Amino acid sequence: MSGIRDVEGGLTAPAGFRAAGVAAGIKKRPASGIAPLDFALIAADTPVPAAAVFTTNKAVAAPIVVSQEHLAQSGGRAGVVAVNAGCANACTGAQGMAVAREMAALAARAAGCASDQALIASTGVIGVPLSIDKVRTGVSAAAGALSRTGSDGAMRAIMTTDPFPKSRAVTVQLDGGRSFSIGGIAKGSGMIEPRMATMLGFLTTDAQVPPDVLQSALRRVSDDTFNAITVDGECSTNDCVFLMASGASGVNVTRDDDAAFIEGLRAVAGHLAREIVRGGEGATKLVTVHVTGAATHDDAWLAARTIANSPLVKTAIHGGDPNWGRLVAAAGRSGAAFVLDRASVAVGPVQVFVSGVPHDERAEQAAQVMQEHEITVAVDLGTGGAHAATMWTCDFSAEYVRINAEYRT
Amino acid sequence: MSGIRDVEGGLTAPAGFRAAGVAAGIKKRPASGIAPLDFALIAADTPVPAAAVFTTNKAVAAPIVVSQEHLAQSGGRAGVVAVNAGCANACTGAQGMAVAREMAALAARAAGCASDQALIASTGVIGVPLSIDKVRTGVSAAAGALSRTGSDGAMRAIMTTDPFPKSRAVTVQLDGGRSFSIGGIAKGSGMIEPRMATMLGFLTTDAQVPPDVLQSALRRVSDDTFNAITVDGECSTNDCVFLMASGASGVNVTRDDDAAFIEGLRAVAGHLAREIVRGGEGATKLVTVHVTGAATHDDAWLAARTIANSPLVKTAIHGGDPNWGRLVAAAGRSGAAFVLDRASVAVGPVQVFVSGVPHDERAEQAAQVMQEHEITVAVDLGTGGAHAATMWTCDFSAEYVRINAEYRT
Repeated sequence: MSGIRDVEGGLTAPAGFRAAGVAAGIKKRPASGIAPLDFALIAADTPVPAAAVFTTNKAVAAPIVVSQEHLAQSGGRAGVVAVNAGCANACTGAQGMAVAREMAALAARAAGCASDQALIASTGVIGVPLSIDKVRTGVSAAAGALSRTGSDGAMRAIMTTDPFPKSRAVTVQLDGGRSFSIGGIAKGSGMIEPRMATMLGFLTTDAQVPPDVLQSALRRVSDDTFNAITVDGECSTNDCVFLMASGASGVNVTRDDDAAFIEGLRAVAGHLAREIVRGGEGATKLVTVHVTGAATHDDAWLAARTIANSPLVKTAIHGGDPNWGRLVAAAGRSGAAFVLDRASVAVGPVQVFVSGVPHDERAEQAAQVMQEHEITVAVDLGTGGAHAATMWTCDFSAEYVRINAEYRT
Repeated sequence: MSGIRDVEGGLTAPAGFRAAGVAAGIKKRPASGIAPLDFALIAADTPVPAAAVFTTNKAVAAPIVVSQEHLAQSGGRAGVVAVNAGCANACTGAQGMAVAREMAALAARAAGCASDQALIASTGVIGVPLSIDKVRTGVSAAAGALSRTGSDGAMRAIMTTDPFPKSRAVTVQLDGGRSFSIGGIAKGSGMIEPRMATMLGFLTTDAQVPPDVLQSALRRVSDDTFNAITVDGECSTNDCVFLMASGASGVNVTRDDDAAFIEGLRAVAGHLAREIVRGGEGATKLVTVHVTGAATHDDAWLAARTIANSPLVKTAIHGGDPNWGRLVAAAGRSGAAFVLDRASVAVGPVQVFVSGVPHDERAEQAAQVMQEHEITVAVDLGTGGAHAATMWTCDFSAEYVRINAEYRT
């Protein structure tokens, strides 16, 4: 099999990509201090195969609509990605669509590719117009700043109030000495201004991957990384993940020979996804929810998702309470097949509920486990089925409420 | 049509019922002060038609299982309801089932009816055994205390940490001078101990209603009253509503002539349901979510339910922020058909988003509305469909997190 090791460089670790982050005046300038980075370009040296997964929210933002159209028109090729933070360009009507199209056209011109080879993304306040003048400033400044070490700037430019930046790059070493790299950056939801709720991810590789293989790899890996996390159960209007493959490593990935690529992609995407949860609004703990004994694949995910989004489970974890009754109640209401008499719950290694029987004598031991910053809770649905699912969530704190209840200023 | 007027007496306003609430030692006794009421009996003078709706949680509590069996065996007749608070008798295995059966048998004996004419309910901590000795104490004391003015005691006995008791009774005046009454009590979730999450409702009437008509009336009315509320989206293991009809008024209700009965039942059930929301954990506001323009009945409810449970919507309302973008995003992710370009949102009477176009110049006016303690938000899904749904929810406060994160002591 292949060896995977971490490398520096994020998005620009793979050969064939340059990036930059600049200040375009879209985010509010703080009373004191310099203007924050809020506009990023990620450019391929030449148009390359590109894949994307998008939000399933039907109130889809203008940049999502444009990027979907462009990927379809170009047959899955892109030369540039333009991203702004501070304004989501969502629920902005026909005017917002016009701005999104112009943003793509400006980025394409700067990168020297066709308009439909430009992808765009926005994150920030919903329902507020995005200034095309500021976008023009951003494209022009970022195009001049593009560099092989620009991942860090781009990463900072796409943050809103994320508590920390999120980046990872790996080199995948193949038998026979060949290797390729995969890099990525992401933003999550650590938002203080109340109208923001977006997750963006940008991934690159220098493997050579045809568009259709790239798209299926991204979809497959997203399902158990980006699509397996939750902070508050709110799917945003702007969520998207892009993946571009430059081919600069000379390593070919085909549908029949993609195991090492999938493995590398999962390492980068999984790390970024878990970092988003760890930096979730008000989060103090990273929680792995592992569901087993499900009758079907869908049931496993339904139960895991219900548990991971349960306010009672998440507040109990915040309080360090090994309250397995709430895990059972959440699994029971999820809609998944559930057999109480054969269901079990473990908190870390501690079995607190086994085949329908409580073991409250282990509550103290379980409470110890709950003090950790990273916790795994495991629920067996008791159906005897072989299906399982793993999701990542965070605890639910008063800080989450404070962040989201504060009136926008 | 009929006239409806409020009367005193709650559950015992209709003729043919007696009730009592006593202290059986199931709830923890406070350090100072008297033992709290925690056991209630509601007795019909003779076994009467009874109907019930139960939790859909698959981790169903022992008392629910027993009550379902008894209603089926008795053909929808009951002579007594026994209820305890302080222990949910949920997730307690075979032992819990034995205690539940014994609780019903004891209550039946005290009321002089057959065992399968006794219904039972429990609310409180999940996963903790219910003491049959305390139940015996409760049944015996309550049987001796049954009275025609016992609704208030029963109501207080079923509370956990509800901030206020919930009761209503009405007399329905028919043409020609005849009348009948409907009364009810309920408990919600204003819980401080972290393992409790139950909603109980008990309704009586002195109309004469056959069991099948009673059951369909209760189901129909529950759908847009008790089933149309949410505090935190958590369906408990113990939720149930019982309705008993003594017939003592001499007024007959049939399937073809039930309009006045439904109207009265909706008045009582709707009031109790909204009171539960108003007393929701940490709640400071009662919010009516009204969805219109849905393509189907299911879509209307799906969108209303998603909005009513959205943490971002509920925190915005807590903060007094007329953040319509979150309402649109929640409707968009709900799975209901949604057409952004024709969708609209109103906060109270203020149209903040009309056919896909923001009206942020009205934000100040909408913010004024958000200061009220009772708020209506209306979302048109923009499909042109004629289906609508109304749900009631509360805001989401840091107090909710505090209540549910506190370690049980």
